[in-house]
Amino acid sequence: MTVDRTLHQFPLDPASRLVRLALGEKRLPFVEVSTRYWERPRELTRMNPSGLVPVLVERAGEAAPLVLCEPRAILDYLEEAYPEPALLGREAAERAEARRLLTWFERKFEFEASGFILHEKIEKRLLSLGPPDLGALRQGRDGLKLHLHVLEDLLAAREWLAGRRLSLADFAAASHLSVIDYFGDVPWRDFPAAKTWYMKLKSRPCFRPLLADRWPGLAPAGHYDDLDF
Amino acid sequence: MTVDRTLHQFPLDPASRLVRLALGEKRLPFVEVSTRYWERPRELTRMNPSGLVPVLVERAGEAAPLVLCEPRAILDYLEEAYPEPALLGREAAERAEARRLLTWFERKFEFEASGFILHEKIEKRLLSLGPPDLGALRQGRDGLKLHLHVLEDLLAAREWLAGRRLSLADFAAASHLSVIDYFGDVPWRDFPAAKTWYMKLKSRPCFRPLLADRWPGLAPAGHYDDLDF
Repeated sequence: MTVDRTLHQFPLDPASRLVRLALGEKRLPFVEVSTRYWERPRELTRMNPSGLVPVLVERAGEAAPLVLCEPRAILDYLEEAYPEPALLGREAAERAEARRLLTWFERKFEFEASGFILHEKIEKRLLSLGPPDLGALRQGRDGLKLHLHVLEDLLAAREWLAGRRLSLADFAAASHLSVIDYFGDVPWRDFPAAKTWYMKLKSRPCFRPLLADRWPGLAPAGHYDDLDF
Repeated sequence: MTVDRTLHQFPLDPASRLVRLALGEKRLPFVEVSTRYWERPRELTRMNPSGLVPVLVERAGEAAPLVLCEPRAILDYLEEAYPEPALLGREAAERAEARRLLTWFERKFEFEASGFILHEKIEKRLLSLGPPDLGALRQGRDGLKLHLHVLEDLLAAREWLAGRRLSLADFAAASHLSVIDYFGDVPWRDFPAAKTWYMKLKSRPCFRPLLADRWPGLAPAGHYDDLDF
């Protein structure tokens, strides 16, 4: 039976990007609906009371649609319903490491780095809150550097962030970094292992739609969609 | 083979409580190590670079110990390794709803309610940051009321938060509420369905250890460990 899949998302939202990457890697076709979630559209709030994207809706035949809200619920469902390719690893230790890093990027990286930068660069623009605060931006960039050191250390010992296999941990990191990279704020040259890792990710077919995202009126940094930056 | 299980945790940390409830409900024996995580003890940081509790360590025979960091990684592992009783439901929609609510309490409830209250009542005491800020406390209590209305609405239509079966969603909500309840800050009388639900949870064997927690020098509210409050 064919499944109709709709992802309600926002192109520069890291959590939306993470789900787009997972869907792409699993080669699951889906329709994207870009949602101005900060305006609290009623259709979105009815599906997800938290008012956040991403929300994935799957319709198969006459059954009630399956509405999946919040990134972890969507990713866990995709692993369970479409186990190949596995994006969490197969052994308990591998899975635990991928999940540890998922939380790391969802919480720690967001609180210490991307949250500052994306609030100043995106949310203030969307909500007409005035120009970026340079102190907050600096705090975000300092946090970003600390986190890039963590990535660099992990990648000195491992091919992918959680171990020998590509996993959702890589996509979680890349979903945040790719948005920051749109604004040219990732100091790649100081982190060669992270840069090589990101180039490998960028070359995957699942990444192409993200590199084609454009925010009306604001072009990305020159190297944003360059696979060999 | 016997498994030695050690949970590094802090008694008044909601995430630690959530894992204790899941372990208890699955009747998995474990040793608790109370950790002053805010002092960044080296043993903890070596296991979990984020420096946060809970961390669960399982040792079985001669194999390398399995170190599980961050609540979602621990909970997902427990579901996979010890599937009975199932704490996420069996059908896709049930599981998605339990996971949606897990994120709701991990993020939204924490940002809007418990984060304010527990920072003022616990973290300021642990870190000697001075007396609670009444404005912040009020903001947390206002947020708490809004969230209690959400619980009340869910419980008007459902036996448990995610549906017909007890799930991690109930434990996630109760882990936060039980800490706030230690300080007597949950206005139960205005939320009769939530109160009945919480009484049912409190009566479960897995809840007993939480009701026995005592913070040295600070007794809990009088009804804290009363099963029929």
